[in-house]
Amino acid sequence: MPRIDRLVIVGLGLIGGSLGMAARRHRVAARVIGVSRSASRLKDAKRLGAIDEGFTNRLAAVTEADVVVLATPVDAIVPYAKALLPKMPAGSVLTDVGSTKSGIVNAIATLTPKGTAFVGGHPIAGSEQRGLSAASARLFDGSVCVLTPTQRTPARALAAVQQLWQPLVNRVLLMSPDQHDRVLAGASHLPHALSFCLAASAGAGPLPHAPKSLSDLTRIAQSDPELWDDIFLSNRSALIAAMDRFDRNWQQLRRLIRQKNAAALRRFLARAQASSHAIHRQ
Amino acid sequence: MPRIDRLVIVGLGLIGGSLGMAARRHRVAARVIGVSRSASRLKDAKRLGAIDEGFTNRLAAVTEADVVVLATPVDAIVPYAKALLPKMPAGSVLTDVGSTKSGIVNAIATLTPKGTAFVGGHPIAGSEQRGLSAASARLFDGSVCVLTPTQRTPARALAAVQQLWQPLVNRVLLMSPDQHDRVLAGASHLPHALSFCLAASAGAGPLPHAPKSLSDLTRIAQSDPELWDDIFLSNRSALIAAMDRFDRNWQQLRRLIRQKNAAALRRFLARAQASSHAIHRQ
Repeated sequence: MPRIDRLVIVGLGLIGGSLGMAARRHRVAARVIGVSRSASRLKDAKRLGAIDEGFTNRLAAVTEADVVVLATPVDAIVPYAKALLPKMPAGSVLTDVGSTKSGIVNAIATLTPKGTAFVGGHPIAGSEQRGLSAASARLFDGSVCVLTPTQRTPARALAAVQQLWQPLVNRVLLMSPDQHDRVLAGASHLPHALSFCLAASAGAGPLPHAPKSLSDLTRIAQSDPELWDDIFLSNRSALIAAMDRFDRNWQQLRRLIRQKNAAALRRFLARAQASSHAIHRQ
Repeated sequence: MPRIDRLVIVGLGLIGGSLGMAARRHRVAARVIGVSRSASRLKDAKRLGAIDEGFTNRLAAVTEADVVVLATPVDAIVPYAKALLPKMPAGSVLTDVGSTKSGIVNAIATLTPKGTAFVGGHPIAGSEQRGLSAASARLFDGSVCVLTPTQRTPARALAAVQQLWQPLVNRVLLMSPDQHDRVLAGASHLPHALSFCLAASAGAGPLPHAPKSLSDLTRIAQSDPELWDDIFLSNRSALIAAMDRFDRNWQQLRRLIRQKNAAALRRFLARAQASSHAIHRQ
């Protein structure tokens, strides 16, 4: 017996489509409803098993919703919340899948009518690919979903969003929006920033194919610029702090190599190696 | 009928061990002889099918060699060449597998007695793992081996080293030592430098495991610091040029994010994405 009656997913790209597939597979809702401005996208989503029913009219889709998930690009989340929240029934819950949280949670806090609630969410899964065609019921397998309730979040709203994600992921973690943004700045946004810069700087040149090191480090730079400029700017202050931390190590490494300081260079690399081992043991 | 009679491999780690296995598998030599100071290493190498015969005495091993491959860490290559070249028979060829070439090729040029020859080599394959236990007959499958002859390299010496690698790799490429070092600085050494710095700067923090982006970008920072400080310092000037190229893009990206310049940021990321696509199409 599913505990959510009507689950509405707004935006049927990689994450929204995969969420629909996984939600239907794990029967977390009696009915999965998809919203897209494109009727052909809704048809594809139905054919792929991502939704039971599709709406091009976003307002009509949410009037009887229990849980609404905004699976749009980061910069569209607040405008969608503003449009949908007044139409959502009392007791319903709005959540999202955006890669940054503080700005979104703060903005939506001022928009939420009495009787409805917003819980920030971020399933840490994805790929440099995008779009419904890359969606998979298994995208979230083994992954972590971070939820970012605040002191004002009603317990039953948090519980509903936890119920949605729990069967789909390995762990649901609760963090404050600020903590989420600091953690993700270091663990995801900084790596993406570096990958974009490396891709902009380097090529395999005359080699017939890139060595694995270059290929691995530039893979995520194939990600969509239109998604990532929003993520970088909406998590600007935490990202700048993470970039500054990197920059201190980077300038130190450049200095040690310039100065041919072999002993200090080896210590630097040994410390980095230990940190990498710790990251991979996690 | 193998064209090389006695192939001697000095150093039986990941690369030397894999070369022995692949050479025996593809029958590129009548006899594969391994050299290690450790008798137990030689025993393991024989058991794993990496060599036909082992010598702890490096000088005795090379007196009847046709081709000798130095598969030691970068900083041991020139000292080994100095010790072995005077003991190698006329007509024999010395080569190496070092990740940098100019310094090695220039140093060995002054050490090579008449009748013997040195050809710089670099199979672009490897892993953050090291040691004989990680060796595999398939390590070089699909990869590229760069050889760096100079104007002084005898044609028959180059041909012998080409014969060794041709059956083992996808392509043997010829470059000047300087060109090799410039290409590898951008395509391998810079990515390793960035990975070490990212590992030193970032952690997944409270996440139960690192997101794929962080995990992919720090994987090669698990590489051995004792190998990589030598590679960085022996390719210092080309690496500094590649680091400077990266640094210009990196400082520009930081500036665009600080300034919230969304339009220029998106253009920057789009250019990086195009470059990444080009790298992955190679």
